[in-house]
Amino acid sequence: MAVNLSPPDPAALHAVDGVRLGVTEAGVRKSNRKDLLVIEVAPDSEVGGVFTRNRFCAAPVILTKAHLASGAGMRALVVNTGNANAGTGEDGLLRARQVCAALAQQLGVETTQILPFSTGVIMEPLPVERIVAGLPKAVANLSADNWALAAQAIMTTDTVSKAVSTRVEIDGRAITITGISKGSGMIHPDMATMLGFVATDAGLSRAALESAIREASDVSFNCVTVDGDTSTNDSFMLIATGRSGLRVDAVGSAGYRAFVAALTDVCTRLAQAMVRDGEGATKFITIDVRGGKHRDECRKIAFAIAHSPLVKTAFFASDPNLGRILAAIGYAGVEDLDVAALELYLDDVRVACSGGRDPSYREEDGKRVMQQSEILVRVELHRGDARATVWTCDLSHDYVTINAEYRT
Amino acid sequence: MAVNLSPPDPAALHAVDGVRLGVTEAGVRKSNRKDLLVIEVAPDSEVGGVFTRNRFCAAPVILTKAHLASGAGMRALVVNTGNANAGTGEDGLLRARQVCAALAQQLGVETTQILPFSTGVIMEPLPVERIVAGLPKAVANLSADNWALAAQAIMTTDTVSKAVSTRVEIDGRAITITGISKGSGMIHPDMATMLGFVATDAGLSRAALESAIREASDVSFNCVTVDGDTSTNDSFMLIATGRSGLRVDAVGSAGYRAFVAALTDVCTRLAQAMVRDGEGATKFITIDVRGGKHRDECRKIAFAIAHSPLVKTAFFASDPNLGRILAAIGYAGVEDLDVAALELYLDDVRVACSGGRDPSYREEDGKRVMQQSEILVRVELHRGDARATVWTCDLSHDYVTINAEYRT
Repeated sequence: MAVNLSPPDPAALHAVDGVRLGVTEAGVRKSNRKDLLVIEVAPDSEVGGVFTRNRFCAAPVILTKAHLASGAGMRALVVNTGNANAGTGEDGLLRARQVCAALAQQLGVETTQILPFSTGVIMEPLPVERIVAGLPKAVANLSADNWALAAQAIMTTDTVSKAVSTRVEIDGRAITITGISKGSGMIHPDMATMLGFVATDAGLSRAALESAIREASDVSFNCVTVDGDTSTNDSFMLIATGRSGLRVDAVGSAGYRAFVAALTDVCTRLAQAMVRDGEGATKFITIDVRGGKHRDECRKIAFAIAHSPLVKTAFFASDPNLGRILAAIGYAGVEDLDVAALELYLDDVRVACSGGRDPSYREEDGKRVMQQSEILVRVELHRGDARATVWTCDLSHDYVTINAEYRT
Repeated sequence: MAVNLSPPDPAALHAVDGVRLGVTEAGVRKSNRKDLLVIEVAPDSEVGGVFTRNRFCAAPVILTKAHLASGAGMRALVVNTGNANAGTGEDGLLRARQVCAALAQQLGVETTQILPFSTGVIMEPLPVERIVAGLPKAVANLSADNWALAAQAIMTTDTVSKAVSTRVEIDGRAITITGISKGSGMIHPDMATMLGFVATDAGLSRAALESAIREASDVSFNCVTVDGDTSTNDSFMLIATGRSGLRVDAVGSAGYRAFVAALTDVCTRLAQAMVRDGEGATKFITIDVRGGKHRDECRKIAFAIAHSPLVKTAFFASDPNLGRILAAIGYAGVEDLDVAALELYLDDVRVACSGGRDPSYREEDGKRVMQQSEILVRVELHRGDARATVWTCDLSHDYVTINAEYRT
């Protein structure tokens, strides 16, 4: 059911020197399913991430943050599906630490050099025994060429695995960026656990890595998720091994800008893939709000449209019930918005202007666009130069079915 | 499909001295359906209201506010369904004014003494001719005993008409409060047009009327709708004719407090009826958040739970997937919330404490409550004395069907 999304071609996923991946079936919740991934990272790599701001932050997220803050060099990431280890209190932290300790022992490193990640059902105890029992198989499977398998191993309600790879030349050196992601509960994207793991053989200073993560995620993953309104487990991690020989140390340098552009491209494609595979999605919708006073108000309006169940069901029905979009713009919380000044377009069809329907708008033009599988909603505010783009999908019967039956 | 909601018994709806109601079929959008209501108000009545804060405020709302502000004594309200006259720009204002002018002429009053209301499809031109042609029939139908018919005439996707009536004694005088409401797009209640019209034969000063409206709506209609996040047409009107002889002029007096209590009771029952008739609703859910530092944070948490499509589909499925409620509490935006201190209950079953599942919680207890048609979700924050209660319903397949096919 995913909208114009195919599984990645394994041959197109370039290995990243210094990173190996291993998967196995640990039987966390379902049998006959790869549900455990180990990502081994070469010594002296830089690793950093951005995380959910949910107050019920999951145990593995708390531990990952603590381990990153410890200053130890990270040597591996471990990811399980089937259980989020969230809403599990002190016991959850203990269990996440047990997983790290077991993997650390096998790899001959410290527990604080392991970063744990979980996704799945909330408020159930993590089955540590099964995960620990599965680790040797995942470690035995470690290979630089396992990106496609890794993308499959982190899927939950995803119907298509998500991986993106690119090679670019920066300062005369070829570098690779390869990443995977999961997440498909995209109607309120904040509630879907979004996991993204991207690796590069470029070498980044701590400052450059953290800045690059924020810049790239701000216009990619954060455009399918609402700030402060995220799942218990959301994480996006960047691993930089430095094996290409390229160094990108100074934030703002030409090399840094080129790296961030390539990273943003990878992250945007991963983020869009999550929307294309949104639960029950039949349409991929880009919402582009332009001419705002600042980006924040553009984002508010874009997300008000993207979150409206009335707008989303209208897209599902291919019904140009476009007043619903105007209503969403109106309640987005931009207090001084002059609705008479704005324009609303569906692709190239102008729908509304002067506070009402464009006199030259014809229902059949709106209907034609609404029937497409990919739709651009463009709002021109005419009050400044700021802009924001977000991506979403429609709301279908299948969304209800998937989420009503998630645990069955 | 409404949850434990029956149509009102016409005999139980007390007439309000000084108010007459007339309905007719004007054919605004569908035939064979009452879609036009006139409420005639005796001279010297006080009339006031609260309105949507949507920036795409509908033309009739703009006009109603202007007429109220003109200082003229209001003599009638006119309500049509089938067309919201919202997102219609200057032309929409012109059309709403034409309706007022036509009714004013028939009643021999000024145009500014008429208050217009509309609900239905957004961004379509209001069919003024049909409405004006229907007015004489509605006026000929005026009667003090038409409350049940009036409740039917303002229905849109409502499946059950909504009317509530009460009689109380204040300062030794019997007074009547009778009201009707409509609205059922309750999944994001902000998007459903909520209309409420309540009349009383108590006499209220302007100050007392406006204060009573705000106090009563704040804990009733505003607990099924998000402030600043409302439809283009939402309105709640209070008419006070004074014919009972009771005067309630001083805000805060004992008589005022008794009147507000009775009014709040009527408004709460009307507001709950809208949730019970929520589009596709199969369950009526009360969310009670207690022990907060202030009411605002309790409301934030309650609405985060009430708006989560994942929580709502779990209620639809009778699935005690209660981690979804914890996640919603976590992303409600209460930055300093200590999740380890709070407790979550389903009716009398404690589900979560100490940041995770209650060790004594049993899945079958959660399942038992989830299968009920009425469910209480109680969150105890243990950080203060504030409290907020909101009402919502589940998210079912029928919601998608109703909204995907709304215009067909």
